[in-house]
Amino acid sequence: MSSDQRWQRLDKRLVVDRSPFARAYDLDFRLPDGRVITNWLQVDLPPFAITFPLTTNGDVIFVRQYRQVVDDYLLELSAGHLEADESPQAAAARELLEECGAVATDWRSLGRYVMDANRGCGWAHVFLAREAQIVAPSNSGDIGEISVHLLPLPEVKRRWQAGEFVSAPTALAIGLALAALGV
Amino acid sequence: MSSDQRWQRLDKRLVVDRSPFARAYDLDFRLPDGRVITNWLQVDLPPFAITFPLTTNGDVIFVRQYRQVVDDYLLELSAGHLEADESPQAAAARELLEECGAVATDWRSLGRYVMDANRGCGWAHVFLAREAQIVAPSNSGDIGEISVHLLPLPEVKRRWQAGEFVSAPTALAIGLALAALGV
Repeated sequence: MSSDQRWQRLDKRLVVDRSPFARAYDLDFRLPDGRVITNWLQVDLPPFAITFPLTTNGDVIFVRQYRQVVDDYLLELSAGHLEADESPQAAAARELLEECGAVATDWRSLGRYVMDANRGCGWAHVFLAREAQIVAPSNSGDIGEISVHLLPLPEVKRRWQAGEFVSAPTALAIGLALAALGV
Repeated sequence: MSSDQRWQRLDKRLVVDRSPFARAYDLDFRLPDGRVITNWLQVDLPPFAITFPLTTNGDVIFVRQYRQVVDDYLLELSAGHLEADESPQAAAARELLEECGAVATDWRSLGRYVMDANRGCGWAHVFLAREAQIVAPSNSGDIGEISVHLLPLPEVKRRWQAGEFVSAPTALAIGLALAALGV
Protein backbone atom coordinates (compact mmCIF):
# COMPACT_ATOMS: atom_id res chain seq x y z
CA MET A 1 0.00 0.00 0.00
CA SER A 2 1.25 3.47 -0.86
CA SER A 3 1.89 5.65 2.14
CA ASP A 4 -0.12 8.45 0.56
CA GLN A 5 -3.57 7.00 0.08
CA ARG A 6 -6.43 9.14 1.34
CA TRP A 7 -9.50 8.09 3.22
CA GLN A 8 -12.68 8.06 1.16
CA ARG A 9 -15.53 9.97 2.75
CA LEU A 10 -18.78 8.00 2.46
CA ASP A 11 -21.18 10.24 4.37
CA LYS A 12 -21.40 13.38 6.50
CA ARG A 13 -24.33 14.03 8.86
CA LEU A 14 -24.95 17.21 10.84
CA VAL A 15 -25.57 16.23 14.47
CA VAL A 16 -25.38 19.58 16.32
CA ASP A 17 -25.88 23.02 14.83
CA ARG A 18 -24.95 26.00 16.99
CA SER A 19 -24.16 28.21 14.00
CA PRO A 20 -22.32 30.46 13.63
CA PHE A 21 -20.27 29.30 16.62
CA ALA A 22 -20.11 25.53 16.34
CA ARG A 23 -21.31 22.59 14.30
CA ALA A 24 -20.62 18.90 14.79
CA TYR A 25 -20.87 16.20 12.15
CA ASP A 26 -20.68 12.42 12.07
CA LEU A 27 -18.47 11.27 9.23
CA ASP A 28 -18.15 7.80 7.70
CA PHE A 29 -14.97 6.79 5.88
CA ARG A 30 -13.56 3.92 3.93
CA LEU A 31 -9.90 3.45 4.78
CA PRO A 32 -7.32 2.51 2.14
CA ASP A 33 -7.31 -1.07 3.48
CA GLY A 34 -11.07 -1.35 2.91
CA ARG A 35 -12.22 -1.00 6.49
CA VAL A 36 -15.14 1.35 7.12
CA ILE A 37 -15.31 3.62 10.14
CA THR A 38 -18.55 5.31 11.11
CA ASN A 39 -19.66 8.19 13.34
CA TRP A 40 -16.28 9.91 13.39
CA LEU A 41 -17.14 13.18 15.09
CA GLN A 42 -15.84 16.31 13.40
CA VAL A 43 -16.16 19.61 15.24
CA ASP A 44 -16.32 22.73 13.08
CA LEU A 45 -15.45 25.91 14.93
CA PRO A 46 -14.83 29.19 13.10
CA PRO A 47 -11.29 30.15 12.13
CA PHE A 48 -9.81 32.76 14.40
CA ALA A 49 -6.92 35.21 14.49
CA ILE A 50 -4.64 35.65 17.50
CA THR A 51 -2.06 38.38 17.94
CA PHE A 52 1.11 38.86 19.98
CA PRO A 53 1.15 42.67 20.25
CA LEU A 54 4.51 44.16 21.28
CA THR A 55 4.35 47.82 22.22
CA THR A 56 6.92 50.45 21.42
CA ASN A 57 7.86 50.24 25.14
CA GLY A 58 8.66 46.53 24.96
CA ASP A 59 5.50 45.32 26.69
CA VAL A 60 3.11 42.65 25.47
CA ILE A 61 -0.61 43.39 25.60
CA PHE A 62 -2.80 40.68 27.16
CA VAL A 63 -6.48 40.36 27.90
CA ARG A 64 -7.87 38.81 31.05
CA GLN A 65 -11.34 37.30 30.95
CA TYR A 66 -13.50 34.62 32.52
CA ARG A 67 -13.40 31.24 30.78
CA GLN A 68 -16.08 28.74 31.72
CA VAL A 69 -13.94 25.77 30.65
CA VAL A 70 -11.62 26.40 33.60
CA ASP A 71 -14.18 28.31 35.70
CA ASP A 72 -11.53 30.95 36.19
CA TYR A 73 -9.98 34.04 34.65
CA LEU A 74 -7.22 33.50 32.10
CA LEU A 75 -4.55 35.79 30.74
CA GLU A 76 -4.56 35.40 26.97
CA LEU A 77 -3.54 37.14 23.80
CA SER A 78 -6.16 39.07 21.86
CA ALA A 79 -8.07 36.72 19.57
CA GLY A 80 -11.36 36.39 17.78
CA HIS A 81 -13.24 34.79 14.93
CA LEU A 82 -12.85 35.91 11.35
CA GLU A 83 -15.98 37.62 10.13
CA ALA A 84 -17.37 36.86 6.69
CA ASP A 85 -15.01 37.92 3.90
CA GLU A 86 -12.54 39.25 6.46
CA SER A 87 -8.85 38.45 5.99
CA PRO A 88 -7.04 36.86 8.95
CA GLN A 89 -4.91 39.96 9.46
CA ALA A 90 -7.92 42.28 9.27
CA ALA A 91 -9.63 40.15 11.92
CA ALA A 92 -6.52 40.24 14.10
CA ALA A 93 -6.31 44.03 13.85
CA ARG A 94 -10.04 44.46 14.52
CA GLU A 95 -9.92 42.22 17.61
CA LEU A 96 -6.79 43.99 18.89
CA LEU A 97 -8.61 47.31 18.66
CA GLU A 98 -11.89 45.99 20.10
CA GLU A 99 -10.42 43.95 22.94
CA CYS A 100 -7.35 46.03 23.82
CA GLY A 101 -8.01 49.42 22.27
CA ALA A 102 -4.69 48.98 20.49
CA VAL A 103 -3.36 49.48 17.00
CA ALA A 104 -0.09 48.32 15.46
CA THR A 105 1.78 49.23 12.30
CA ASP A 106 4.14 46.28 11.80
CA TRP A 107 2.31 43.01 11.16
CA ARG A 108 3.78 39.61 10.38
CA SER A 109 2.02 36.28 9.89
CA LEU A 110 3.40 33.41 11.96
CA GLY A 111 1.33 30.74 10.23
CA ARG A 112 -1.99 28.94 10.49
CA TYR A 113 -2.61 25.91 12.65
CA VAL A 114 -5.44 23.43 13.05
CA MET A 115 -6.34 23.03 16.71
CA ASP A 116 -7.18 19.31 16.45
CA ALA A 117 -5.90 17.30 13.51
CA ASN A 118 -8.36 14.50 14.33
CA ARG A 119 -11.56 16.50 14.70
CA GLY A 120 -11.01 20.06 13.52
CA CYS A 121 -11.94 22.48 16.32
CA GLY A 122 -10.96 25.49 14.21
CA TRP A 123 -7.88 27.04 12.65
CA ALA A 124 -5.72 29.64 14.37
CA HIS A 125 -4.10 32.37 12.30
CA VAL A 126 -1.18 33.67 14.35
CA PHE A 127 0.27 37.16 14.07
CA LEU A 128 3.10 39.18 15.53
CA ALA A 129 2.21 42.89 15.73
CA ARG A 130 5.09 45.22 16.52
CA GLU A 131 4.92 48.96 17.17
CA ALA A 132 1.65 48.41 19.01
CA GLN A 133 0.05 51.25 20.95
CA ILE A 134 -3.01 51.51 23.13
CA VAL A 135 -5.14 54.33 21.74
CA ALA A 136 -8.62 53.69 23.12
CA PRO A 137 -10.49 51.86 25.89
CA SER A 138 -11.34 48.19 25.45
CA ASN A 139 -14.77 47.74 23.89
CA SER A 140 -15.00 44.12 22.89
CA GLY A 141 -18.72 43.47 22.90
CA ASP A 142 -17.86 39.94 24.02
CA ILE A 143 -19.85 38.18 26.70
CA GLY A 144 -18.45 39.04 30.11
CA GLU A 145 -15.84 41.50 31.28
CA ILE A 146 -12.46 41.86 29.75
CA SER A 147 -9.45 43.76 31.10
CA VAL A 148 -6.18 44.71 29.46
CA HIS A 149 -2.79 43.92 31.03
CA LEU A 150 0.73 44.80 29.95
CA LEU A 151 3.65 42.49 30.71
CA PRO A 152 7.30 43.18 29.91
CA LEU A 153 8.72 40.84 27.27
CA PRO A 154 11.13 39.00 29.63
CA GLU A 155 8.29 38.32 32.07
CA VAL A 156 6.18 36.93 29.24
CA LYS A 157 8.96 34.52 28.34
CA ARG A 158 9.46 33.49 31.96
CA ARG A 159 5.74 32.87 32.56
CA TRP A 160 5.37 31.05 29.22
CA GLN A 161 8.26 28.70 30.02
CA ALA A 162 6.74 28.07 33.45
CA GLY A 163 3.51 26.91 31.79
CA GLU A 164 1.43 29.77 33.20
CA PHE A 165 -0.38 30.52 29.93
CA VAL A 166 -2.71 27.52 29.82
CA SER A 167 -4.73 28.60 26.80
CA ALA A 168 -3.12 26.65 23.96
CA PRO A 169 -3.53 29.25 21.18
CA THR A 170 -1.95 31.88 23.44
CA ALA A 171 0.96 29.59 24.38
CA LEU A 172 1.46 28.63 20.73
CA ALA A 173 1.49 32.26 19.59
CA ILE A 174 3.88 33.31 22.36
CA GLY A 175 6.38 30.64 21.34
CA LEU A 176 6.27 31.60 17.68
CA ALA A 177 6.49 35.32 18.45
CA LEU A 178 9.41 35.03 20.86
CA ALA A 179 11.34 33.03 18.26
CA ALA A 180 10.48 35.56 15.52
CA LEU A 181 11.72 38.32 17.82
CA GLY A 182 14.88 36.36 18.59
CA VAL A 183 14.11 36.54 22.32
CA MET B 1 -18.91 44.50 39.63
CA SER B 2 -15.86 42.64 40.79
CA SER B 3 -13.57 41.50 38.01
CA ASP B 4 -13.53 37.99 39.48
CA GLN B 5 -17.13 36.87 39.46
CA ARG B 6 -17.78 33.47 37.98
CA TRP B 7 -20.56 32.41 35.68
CA GLN B 8 -23.28 30.31 37.31
CA ARG B 9 -24.03 27.09 35.46
CA LEU B 10 -27.77 26.52 35.26
CA ASP B 11 -27.95 23.35 33.17
CA LYS B 12 -25.85 20.90 31.17
CA ARG B 13 -27.37 18.64 28.49
CA LEU B 14 -25.56 15.89 26.60
CA VAL B 15 -26.22 16.41 22.88
CA VAL B 16 -23.71 14.05 21.22
CA ASP B 17 -22.09 11.01 22.79
CA ARG B 18 -19.22 9.42 20.91
CA SER B 19 -17.59 8.07 24.06
CA PRO B 20 -14.80 7.51 24.75
CA PHE B 21 -13.60 9.82 22.00
CA ALA B 22 -15.91 12.82 22.12
CA ARG B 23 -18.94 14.24 23.87
CA ALA B 24 -20.70 17.54 23.31
CA TYR B 25 -22.94 19.34 25.78
CA ASP B 26 -25.21 22.35 25.71
CA LEU B 27 -24.62 24.52 28.75
CA ASP B 28 -26.77 27.32 30.12
CA PHE B 29 -25.24 30.04 32.29
CA ARG B 30 -26.24 33.08 34.27
CA LEU B 31 -23.64 35.80 33.84
CA PRO B 32 -22.59 38.05 36.72
CA ASP B 33 -24.71 40.87 35.25
CA GLY B 34 -27.82 38.68 35.34
CA ARG B 35 -28.03 37.82 31.66
CA VAL B 36 -28.67 34.18 30.78
CA ILE B 37 -26.97 32.44 27.88
CA THR B 38 -28.25 29.13 26.59
CA ASN B 39 -26.98 26.31 24.37
CA TRP B 40 -23.30 27.15 24.83
CA LEU B 41 -21.67 24.17 23.17
CA GLN B 42 -18.91 22.52 25.15
CA VAL B 43 -16.82 19.85 23.43
CA ASP B 44 -15.23 17.25 25.70
CA LEU B 45 -12.31 15.44 24.12
CA PRO B 46 -9.98 13.23 26.15
CA PRO B 47 -6.79 14.69 27.60
CA PHE B 48 -3.73 13.72 25.64
CA ALA B 49 0.04 13.69 26.03
CA ILE B 50 2.43 14.92 23.35
CA THR B 51 6.19 14.49 23.35
CA PHE B 52 9.17 16.22 21.76
CA PRO B 53 11.66 13.31 21.65
CA LEU B 54 15.28 14.34 21.14
CA THR B 55 17.60 11.46 20.34
CA THR B 56 21.14 11.03 21.56
CA ASN B 57 22.19 11.97 17.99
CA GLY B 58 20.41 15.34 18.10
CA ASP B 59 17.46 14.33 15.94
CA VAL B 60 13.78 14.82 16.73
CA ILE B 61 11.43 11.89 16.17
CA PHE B 62 8.24 12.66 14.23
CA VAL B 63 5.31 10.61 13.02
CA ARG B 64 3.65 11.05 9.66
CA GLN B 65 0.04 10.01 9.24
CA TYR B 66 -3.11 10.76 7.31
CA ARG B 67 -5.39 13.36 8.89
CA GLN B 68 -8.90 13.60 7.52
CA VAL B 69 -9.31 17.20 8.72
CA VAL B 70 -6.76 18.34 6.13
CA ASP B 71 -7.25 15.33 3.80
CA ASP B 72 -3.48 14.98 3.75
CA TYR B 73 -0.54 13.54 5.61
CA LEU B 74 0.91 15.60 8.46
CA LEU B 75 4.23 15.46 10.24
CA GLU B 76 3.51 15.59 13.96
CA LEU B 77 5.00 14.75 17.31
CA SER B 78 4.00 11.52 19.00
CA ALA B 79 0.77 12.01 20.92
CA GLY B 80 -2.18 10.09 22.27
CA HIS B 81 -4.98 10.01 24.78
CA LEU B 82 -4.42 9.23 28.42
CA GLU B 83 -5.87 5.87 29.33
CA ALA B 84 -7.84 5.40 32.52
CA ASP B 85 -5.72 5.98 35.64
CA GLU B 86 -2.67 6.63 33.47
CA SER B 87 -0.42 9.57 34.36
CA PRO B 88 0.31 12.07 31.57
CA GLN B 89 3.98 11.07 31.49
CA ALA B 90 3.13 7.36 31.39
CA ALA B 91 0.81 8.02 28.46
CA ALA B 92 3.50 10.04 26.70
CA ALA B 93 6.04 7.24 27.13
CA ARG B 94 3.56 4.57 26.02
CA GLU B 95 2.62 6.50 22.88
CA LEU B 96 6.27 7.19 22.09
CA LEU B 97 6.97 3.46 22.22
CA GLU B 98 3.82 2.46 20.32
CA GLU B 99 3.99 5.10 17.60
CA CYS B 100 7.76 5.49 17.21
CA GLY B 101 9.23 2.38 18.80
CA ALA B 102 11.23 4.76 20.98
CA VAL B 103 12.13 5.06 24.63
CA ALA B 104 13.69 7.97 26.52
CA THR B 105 15.30 8.30 29.92
CA ASP B 106 15.15 12.05 30.58
CA TRP B 107 11.60 13.39 30.83
CA ARG B 108 10.47 16.90 31.63
CA SER B 109 6.95 18.32 31.74
CA LEU B 110 6.44 21.51 29.74
CA GLY B 111 2.96 22.18 31.08
CA ARG B 112 -0.68 21.47 30.33
CA TYR B 113 -2.82 23.50 27.97
CA VAL B 114 -6.50 23.65 27.10
CA MET B 115 -6.99 23.54 23.34
CA ASP B 116 -10.04 25.84 23.34
CA ALA B 117 -10.70 28.09 26.33
CA ASN B 118 -14.26 28.70 25.09
CA ARG B 119 -15.39 25.15 24.41
CA GLY B 120 -12.84 22.71 25.80
CA CYS B 121 -11.64 20.38 23.02
CA GLY B 122 -9.23 18.59 25.35
CA TRP B 123 -6.10 19.29 27.37
CA ALA B 124 -2.60 18.74 26.04
CA HIS B 125 0.12 17.56 28.42
CA VAL B 126 3.42 18.52 26.82
CA PHE B 127 6.72 16.73 27.43
CA LEU B 128 10.32 17.03 26.42
CA ALA B 129 12.04 13.62 26.29
CA ARG B 130 15.81 13.68 25.96
CA GLU B 131 18.14 10.72 25.47
CA ALA B 132 15.52 9.15 23.21
CA GLN B 133 16.37 6.04 21.20
CA ILE B 134 14.46 3.99 18.67
CA VAL B 135 14.47 0.42 19.92
CA ALA B 136 11.59 -1.24 18.07
CA PRO B 137 9.35 -0.89 15.01
CA SER B 138 6.32 1.36 15.17
CA ASN B 139 3.21 -0.54 16.28
CA SER B 140 0.63 2.05 17.11
CA GLY B 141 -2.61 0.20 16.57
CA ASP B 142 -4.06 3.53 15.42
CA ILE B 143 -6.38 3.72 12.44
CA GLY B 144 -4.35 4.09 9.27
CA GLU B 145 -0.67 3.93 8.51
CA ILE B 146 1.96 5.73 10.49
CA SER B 147 5.61 6.23 9.62
CA VAL B 148 8.50 7.51 11.69
CA HIS B 149 10.77 10.34 10.54
CA LEU B 150 13.87 11.85 12.09
CA LEU B 151 14.73 15.52 11.60
CA PRO B 152 17.84 17.27 12.88
CA LEU B 153 17.11 19.86 15.57
CA PRO B 154 18.09 22.91 13.44
CA GLU B 155 15.79 21.75 10.64
CA VAL B 156 12.93 21.35 13.14
CA LYS B 157 13.41 24.93 14.25
CA ARG B 158 13.59 26.21 10.68
CA ARG B 159 10.44 24.36 9.61
CA TRP B 160 8.59 25.37 12.76
CA GLN B 161 9.39 29.03 12.24
CA ALA B 162 8.26 28.71 8.61
CA GLY B 163 4.86 27.48 9.82
CA GLU B 164 5.26 24.02 8.29
CA PHE B 165 3.96 22.14 11.33
CA VAL B 166 0.27 22.97 11.02
CA SER B 167 -0.97 20.70 13.80
CA ALA B 168 -1.34 23.11 16.73
CA PRO B 169 -0.34 20.71 19.56
CA THR B 170 2.82 19.81 17.63
CA ALA B 171 3.69 23.46 16.96
CA LEU B 172 3.00 24.35 20.59
CA ALA B 173 5.20 21.53 21.88
CA ILE B 174 8.04 22.35 19.48
CA GLY B 175 8.12 25.96 20.69
CA LEU B 176 8.19 24.99 24.34
CA ALA B 177 10.82 22.29 23.78
CA LEU B 178 13.15 24.50 21.73
CA ALA B 179 13.02 27.12 24.47
CA ALA B 180 13.63 24.52 27.18
CA LEU B 181 16.63 23.27 25.21
CA GLY B 182 17.89 26.82 24.73
CA VAL B 183 17.87 26.39 20.96
